[in-house]
Amino acid sequence: MAYDTNFTGQKFKVVGTRPLRPDGLDKVTGRARYGADVSAPGQLVGRVLRSPHAHAKIVKIDTSKAEKLPGVKAVITSADLPDLTNGDAGMYDILVNCMARGKALYDGHAVAAVAAVDAATARKALKLINVEYKILPHVTDVDEAVKPGAPVLHSKMFTDGVEPKPTKASNVAKRTEFGHGDVEKGFKEADVIVERSFKTEQTHQGYIEPHACLANLGSDGQGEMWVCTQGHFVYRNTCATLLGLDAAKLRVTASEIGGGFGGKTHVWAEPLALALSRKANRPVKLVMTRDEVFKASGPTSSTSIDVKIGATKDGRITAATATLRYQGGPFLGMWAELGAMTSYACYDLKNVKTVGYEVVVNRPKVAAYRAPSAPMAAFAVESVVDELAHKIGMDAVAFRIKNAAKEGTKSSYGPTYGPIGIGPTLEAAKNHPHMKAPLKKNQGRGMACGFWFNFGGQTSTSLNVTPDGSVNVSVGTIDVGGSRASMALIAAEELGVPYENVRCVVADTSSLGHNDMSDGSRVTFSSGMNTVIAARNAKKVLIQRAAKMWDIPEEAVTWEDGHAKPAGANAGNFPPLSLKEIAAAAGNTGGPIAGHNEFVADGAGVSFATHICDVELDPETGATKIIRYTVIQDAGKAIHPSYVEGQYQGGAAQGIGWALNEEYVYGKDGRLQNAGYLDYRIPVCSDLPMIDTVILEIPNPNHPYGVRGVGETSIVPPLAAIANAVSNAAGVRMTHIPMSPPRILKALDDQAKTKAKAA
Amino acid sequence: MAYDTNFTGQKFKVVGTRPLRPDGLDKVTGRARYGADVSAPGQLVGRVLRSPHAHAKIVKIDTSKAEKLPGVKAVITSADLPDLTNGDAGMYDILVNCMARGKALYDGHAVAAVAAVDAATARKALKLINVEYKILPHVTDVDEAVKPGAPVLHSKMFTDGVEPKPTKASNVAKRTEFGHGDVEKGFKEADVIVERSFKTEQTHQGYIEPHACLANLGSDGQGEMWVCTQGHFVYRNTCATLLGLDAAKLRVTASEIGGGFGGKTHVWAEPLALALSRKANRPVKLVMTRDEVFKASGPTSSTSIDVKIGATKDGRITAATATLRYQGGPFLGMWAELGAMTSYACYDLKNVKTVGYEVVVNRPKVAAYRAPSAPMAAFAVESVVDELAHKIGMDAVAFRIKNAAKEGTKSSYGPTYGPIGIGPTLEAAKNHPHMKAPLKKNQGRGMACGFWFNFGGQTSTSLNVTPDGSVNVSVGTIDVGGSRASMALIAAEELGVPYENVRCVVADTSSLGHNDMSDGSRVTFSSGMNTVIAARNAKKVLIQRAAKMWDIPEEAVTWEDGHAKPAGANAGNFPPLSLKEIAAAAGNTGGPIAGHNEFVADGAGVSFATHICDVELDPETGATKIIRYTVIQDAGKAIHPSYVEGQYQGGAAQGIGWALNEEYVYGKDGRLQNAGYLDYRIPVCSDLPMIDTVILEIPNPNHPYGVRGVGETSIVPPLAAIANAVSNAAGVRMTHIPMSPPRILKALDDQAKTKAKAA
Repeated sequence: MAYDTNFTGQKFKVVGTRPLRPDGLDKVTGRARYGADVSAPGQLVGRVLRSPHAHAKIVKIDTSKAEKLPGVKAVITSADLPDLTNGDAGMYDILVNCMARGKALYDGHAVAAVAAVDAATARKALKLINVEYKILPHVTDVDEAVKPGAPVLHSKMFTDGVEPKPTKASNVAKRTEFGHGDVEKGFKEADVIVERSFKTEQTHQGYIEPHACLANLGSDGQGEMWVCTQGHFVYRNTCATLLGLDAAKLRVTASEIGGGFGGKTHVWAEPLALALSRKANRPVKLVMTRDEVFKASGPTSSTSIDVKIGATKDGRITAATATLRYQGGPFLGMWAELGAMTSYACYDLKNVKTVGYEVVVNRPKVAAYRAPSAPMAAFAVESVVDELAHKIGMDAVAFRIKNAAKEGTKSSYGPTYGPIGIGPTLEAAKNHPHMKAPLKKNQGRGMACGFWFNFGGQTSTSLNVTPDGSVNVSVGTIDVGGSRASMALIAAEELGVPYENVRCVVADTSSLGHNDMSDGSRVTFSSGMNTVIAARNAKKVLIQRAAKMWDIPEEAVTWEDGHAKPAGANAGNFPPLSLKEIAAAAGNTGGPIAGHNEFVADGAGVSFATHICDVELDPETGATKIIRYTVIQDAGKAIHPSYVEGQYQGGAAQGIGWALNEEYVYGKDGRLQNAGYLDYRIPVCSDLPMIDTVILEIPNPNHPYGVRGVGETSIVPPLAAIANAVSNAAGVRMTHIPMSPPRILKALDDQAKTKAKAA
Repeated sequence: MAYDTNFTGQKFKVVGTRPLRPDGLDKVTGRARYGADVSAPGQLVGRVLRSPHAHAKIVKIDTSKAEKLPGVKAVITSADLPDLTNGDAGMYDILVNCMARGKALYDGHAVAAVAAVDAATARKALKLINVEYKILPHVTDVDEAVKPGAPVLHSKMFTDGVEPKPTKASNVAKRTEFGHGDVEKGFKEADVIVERSFKTEQTHQGYIEPHACLANLGSDGQGEMWVCTQGHFVYRNTCATLLGLDAAKLRVTASEIGGGFGGKTHVWAEPLALALSRKANRPVKLVMTRDEVFKASGPTSSTSIDVKIGATKDGRITAATATLRYQGGPFLGMWAELGAMTSYACYDLKNVKTVGYEVVVNRPKVAAYRAPSAPMAAFAVESVVDELAHKIGMDAVAFRIKNAAKEGTKSSYGPTYGPIGIGPTLEAAKNHPHMKAPLKKNQGRGMACGFWFNFGGQTSTSLNVTPDGSVNVSVGTIDVGGSRASMALIAAEELGVPYENVRCVVADTSSLGHNDMSDGSRVTFSSGMNTVIAARNAKKVLIQRAAKMWDIPEEAVTWEDGHAKPAGANAGNFPPLSLKEIAAAAGNTGGPIAGHNEFVADGAGVSFATHICDVELDPETGATKIIRYTVIQDAGKAIHPSYVEGQYQGGAAQGIGWALNEEYVYGKDGRLQNAGYLDYRIPVCSDLPMIDTVILEIPNPNHPYGVRGVGETSIVPPLAAIANAVSNAAGVRMTHIPMSPPRILKALDDQAKTKAKAA
């Protein structure tokens, strides 16, 4: 698919090309080392004992039998971690989630852990730990949890954000509100109003690699950890806090990552591995099983959302509201807040109001999942937008174009937009051949828009020129989607050297300044900008060195095309010096050549996408098949277009699974019924068509190359686009995700009953 | 022992204290990870086939049988490494030493290598490699090698440094000369002249840990290596050159090091491990056996030295010469040159001349061994100095004080000294109780002086403040003797934070700029100075951030005692901000706080020592025992005095082994007879007394804290001091090191015969 490589007017030589990926060979030959792939002599196997109850008081834990088992080197409970909860276990979520303190809050909540010489001994030891529980009533559904009389998880949880603050504890942790204008007035101006309620079920990011680490911590408070994570600096800081260490004393090295998608932004069992290591005075390897990953890592929220939108007959939205209830597992999240912020971000609205409620339930602590909270909100809003367009007899794309946000729009969550891509993606959709392709019987087409903020954040980068003139870029942002290739391209572009001479690595936490996580689609934006800055700092040094070699002032030297050149009439007549030549002389001109920068990357460009989807429905079985799918998204600037396309396709693929099949199923006993890939169905290759991509490039003015984030927006539209397609194919509005065959059959059945009743 | 902590006039708070060593717990609990302690899934075992001949043409190598053995994944010969020799195998020593090319040049020279699934298969495969040799005449003794008619190792070796350049090939690779004045004239002015010839045998550094690495290199030219080394950046650069890679593409991580002492400054089997990994496309672990370490790593030179010194009756040296022949194994070294430079460095001489000859023999390639070449030269010179003092009836210490170099002396190797410590160490020796302690029968006392240059060199350092205010110092110099503790002390001193909040780590080669090796006693000088600079750069950032927090100009903020404080009358009245507080706010004031520096550390301070030694001799057996030993040495400034004392003691202990027992024994077949610790006797605890130390601190004016190197000088005087002591005890001048019991008995016997003949 063609795309414009030159939106910013810059003539790129390397950026925008598609060289071989640097991690490719290692990954396909099996040499890439993931979290479980590092070993240390004398290491122990760590295993975690987990609550079988959704909600239970821990009356007593007797570890004495386990401790006596030969081969067991350490047993820990919450007593082995400092109590930072200030008496309120519900409120210090990371610590309490890692190891239950007083109460088990969900099926799978850690209550104790062991380190033993082998896995068999560790498993045996877990069975010898005697936990006395007092079972408490539980609640796992987000709507049930907010009903009066529901079991309350935390006796000190009084809803934040409500005035006056409630004095009665409830499962609503917080209320947030966004918007502007007067929605009551706006609805009065409307000719048509659509109002609907939606539900989405809880899904898991479904990363291939389970959480794994090798921890090695001494009784002197100094240690190291090798871990699979999206943010080893954040893991370092959190683990240091939870274990009472100085952050600088814990050196964390990140492994390759077999997927994260937000699920590896929190610590899970890592602090336990460190605590076990400290107690046993031996390295401890701890790898979660898939069962544990489902039960006790961080899936996304299940939600319940009410949407109401009014419009005039000529297609102008006059008012829009949304009430969003997102569960965060047993702890306060920011999930409903993110849903409330993103709901209407695609539109230019006079009157808009969104209210979010953070709800706690007896499920695992929720973590981010790719554009966290936005897909569910987009599902609800874009479903109603579609229905509204249909009701006023307007084309769904044209209706959206008419109401789309643009430069200068005050967004529904507050800020005023700069140059943005929602309009261009809709125009591109309107003109895309997919939009005009004929459909067959039982097929339906849907489209939807999506938004994500993209983050910036704290970033540290070093660039070092080696004596042979090849270049290392050292970043602290985990490469979850090809950022080492992007950084190498950017450094090569800035320095004027071939991409092949640059290697980007992820440094350990003791070798670089703090970096925020690889989340919020921030990496190519923030580490990319920092690579530009570091390279420009290195160029200053290169120029100084060339000046020294020529014995002329620095001001008389310029950098062009990978070479220092004399600049100006009086500079002298020297043949250009290549980076390689300057590097070779570095030992005699002042030492190693480097560029560094630490900063907070501000100005991440918001990102928009429009997706088009064709679905075929089998009305006999309720089975669906995606037969065509197109992603159109603004990248700002695509540094390595293949990776950008990969992100677009990956987001769509995950959205397809979420929309059609994936869901956490809890039994009445509050226990997870389907903690494995046999019963939790993620899409496989044969479920998916080739996903078409269109990269638009509306430069982000806050980035030297125009980069925006690209990783997350692509998962925002699919739920809605597919729901719109299925609704079209089925002739009935689908309001509950996933649209699994039983749910589709039920919807068809209900519709048939209604029709029969009406007839 | 008392020492002055305040020579530079600085009031140190942290520097000069003796906190717990940061690597202590890991090392005593066995958790520290050495070269062989890292493993990767799927790794192979690498093994090297070595020549059993001292000198042989390699007619043919047939690897086909080995390749067919199940479990063998790669077999390599020199054909698998690029030929960089330009047709002259003798001249590109590192490459040819790693893998013989055309000729095997010593017993143990690598000729092929295999990688197999386990050690047994690898050993079996080595036996299946068929090498057809044509045996050539060999020479292993340094004096034999320079005789006319000796077997010549390299047909294109024509002595460098001789005019006109010889046209006949010989084993003398190079001649160098140092000195000034007119020695002929000087000798004419002498009242007494002593002239003697000395020999020293080849010794090994005797590090505990054999060479070990895990190599992982892809066919895309990108890889990683975990290795035990004194210089992972240098290993990186060398391996990249030898394998035809970009240096930036090879990420080298240094393990803990179980000793190096110069022996881990060259690559040995590491390029072979990388080449095997590249060919097998699997990680390869290669650990040398102790036998291989003796035969095929880098011991020190054996030497043959002639010394002539003349003096007036009142104790003034009028002229001094030395002719030094050092063998470098089969390749050109710089060993005689270093011997020639250091011979007379302790003295203030009007007329001095030293000539060095680099000799090649059929022994392993020589590597540095702690103050390389200086101990042998000092042995020869200090023996003659002692004898001369005795002959003119002057106290040996007083004679040395009279002739000692001082500030302003033009050294025998060229430069003019700044403030130096030879005089103070001699004065301290004169006044030391050891000097006056009575001796018993068969006991003798000796003393001697020693000198080492100390190096500076290329150095890169980063200092990062973590969000909790603890500090990481990231260096690229391997910690061979406690430098992580020193850097932490220095960073704590500069920043005004507790030592306990700082952790220094050795960064991998992709995360920091180039660093020269940990050799030349350069680390505490160069990385120490760079830590000061990096910390001062970080303080500038801390001050900027405090200014931002107070909203006052940077110029109105000063740094004092670990806190930012308002400075000057108009700065405002703010309570001081601690580093911790500024660090905690960093995310809101501009991002992570760091300081970096890359430079060439110039101005390493030369270092001098005086040792005193008491020996007891058993005239029946020739056995000796060191009964008292005192080291007096100038440290410039002792950052962590316990480590400095450890260096002093360690150098003396190694010198004692060298002086009394250690030697390579070659048979007539040119094969090493004692490649193991059973037959090559290094001193054990019971062989040594507690070694007393006196730290003097004559500040190096080129270092902000006055630091000089301390690691090497301590091995320079022992050979001479012990030889002087033994000579005193035996009543006969010992001229051949080691002074093993058979050699002592022979000397006593020869003396008895001479006396008998004279009687």
